[in-house]
Amino acid sequence: MTRRNKNDYFNVPGDAPRPVSASVTRRCQFSEVDALAIAWHGRYASFFEEAATELGHKCGLTYEAMREAGVTAPVVQLHIDYYRPLRLNERFTIHASVIWSEGAKLNTQFLITGEDGACACTGYTVQMFVETATGEVCIFPPPLLTAFHDKWLAGIYD
Amino acid sequence: MTRRNKNDYFNVPGDAPRPVSASVTRRCQFSEVDALAIAWHGRYASFFEEAATELGHKCGLTYEAMREAGVTAPVVQLHIDYYRPLRLNERFTIHASVIWSEGAKLNTQFLITGEDGACACTGYTVQMFVETATGEVCIFPPPLLTAFHDKWLAGIYD
Amino acid sequence: MTRRNKNDYFNVPGDAPRPVSASVTRRCQFSEVDALAIAWHGRYASFFEEAATELGHKCGLTYEAMREAGVTAPVVQLHIDYYRPLRLNERFTIHASVIWSEGAKLNTQFLITGEDGACACTGYTVQMFVETATGEVCIFPPPLLTAFHDKWLAGIYD
Amino acid sequence: MTRRNKNDYFNVPGDAPRPVSASVTRRCQFSEVDALAIAWHGRYASFFEEAATELGHKCGLTYEAMREAGVTAPVVQLHIDYYRPLRLNERFTIHASVIWSEGAKLNTQFLITGEDGACACTGYTVQMFVETATGEVCIFPPPLLTAFHDKWLAGIYD
Repeated sequence: MTRRNKNDYFNVPGDAPRPVSASVTRRCQFSEVDALAIAWHGRYASFFEEAATELGHKCGLTYEAMREAGVTAPVVQLHIDYYRPLRLNERFTIHASVIWSEGAKLNTQFLITGEDGACACTGYTVQMFVETATGEVCIFPPPLLTAFHDKWLAGIYD
Repeated sequence: MTRRNKNDYFNVPGDAPRPVSASVTRRCQFSEVDALAIAWHGRYASFFEEAATELGHKCGLTYEAMREAGVTAPVVQLHIDYYRPLRLNERFTIHASVIWSEGAKLNTQFLITGEDGACACTGYTVQMFVETATGEVCIFPPPLLTAFHDKWLAGIYD
Repeated sequence: MTRRNKNDYFNVPGDAPRPVSASVTRRCQFSEVDALAIAWHGRYASFFEEAATELGHKCGLTYEAMREAGVTAPVVQLHIDYYRPLRLNERFTIHASVIWSEGAKLNTQFLITGEDGACACTGYTVQMFVETATGEVCIFPPPLLTAFHDKWLAGIYD
Repeated sequence: MTRRNKNDYFNVPGDAPRPVSASVTRRCQFSEVDALAIAWHGRYASFFEEAATELGHKCGLTYEAMREAGVTAPVVQLHIDYYRPLRLNERFTIHASVIWSEGAKLNTQFLITGEDGACACTGYTVQMFVETATGEVCIFPPPLLTAFHDKWLAGIYD
């Protein structure tokens, strides 16, 4: 239960391509805070997803692209470390970074920084790929993931 | 990132008192499912909290009791492993168990079982205690936590 | 903008069959309250839906039944009058009643009563029926609505 | 139950100052859609609130300003008319306009336009003012509302 360093949730080989990142900046809404006027801890999954959606647009891994490819990418693991609260109306930034992996999965790291620029939260998600038609977990990366990997290795995102 | 066994998120000494548990059974609502008609992964934090609230009533650690005691118990870590989806209208059960710890914190494990009784999800939360007046993290267990520990050690929950 | 009487959102002929009702009782969760520790006003749509879902089970108008019948029933109007707040952990009851209408729509009235039995909120929804295949609004009641109307007129729900 | 014209939820005298408006544009998130991949109808209250918050900043009626002034402004009525669905990832705009009223209340109208610029939804909220200390409804406009009215009448927002 010891906290990890903020940026090493995933182990990657030294020669792996660097993470691909996207971020979203917005205010903490009234509908998102709890009785203490801070963002309710369960809200962070939607914060993560907002930045992950931007990242998906960048990587060709949108909901629409996956549906057309006949796959879904369910989250099989979610982890969040909370460092300091986000206050009502505070302007914060959610950073999402997909971390290199050769397998048929998506490892994404998250960092939320508050209005002061300090780290408010870190976390990660792991997603598997599933064939929509059969419900079977993909053993090998599906073509749209391979296409993303190829671009990534080619340095398109550097 | 390997998955842990479903019931060993926390290490406890062999002579620690057994977990105290509570559970809630209910249906997966339309407002809780995503475009695939399964519970959206970010919803599980509220599922966990529903069972944790029941557990808090059992242990004397309700929101009201904490407010009167001048402390809050923010979640500092949330972890969720998803095993199989919860479908719209599926009847599922959320089990919450507080795991023994001597420190000024609450370690809670969660298990969600589907209509078929199979494990759909496991996870945990870690909560610290904070003095409301000063905003300082409690180094030692606050009195209402000690009171719970005393009852627990006395076998009240066996 | 004057408030209506609590039970006359819809006009019905004097010889119409009486409303069919269902209700749900539960606590106000921590994840549902706002910075004032009362249920956030935007949450009430999900409160309404919980009772409407129970009502749908009673009337044969579940999500599954509609999907099999090739129709959906989108909400085209939602109205909520708030009388007094629901507090964190308060036990409240949501009453949903479908009000007679001959047309291809569902008119549902809602009443929320607090722990003290007093009226905390009233409201209503109007739902149209849409053919899933064509996206066209149904002009005449689809068969599964007619089947419900027939049972209703036959006195099954009295 | 007939639908009103889209812009006349409130009656105002002919010589009333014009509405003060604010808007927010953003995408429909995955966490916001239902099993039909469209924004769940209960989500619109939070859409309205996002634009109302911007409007509050413009008018000096923020949550913080009200707390300092010792008042709250609970929503006592919410009404929503849905015209066409908002799809997953669709970019939409929420327009909020406060409508002139001399009383101790806030009447706000809403319009949501889809990516195509067409009207997707209209609605309104009515808010009363309550003295935080006593819990009493304000009969007369509290000072921070009067201050806003004075600026409004002076043409500051034209």
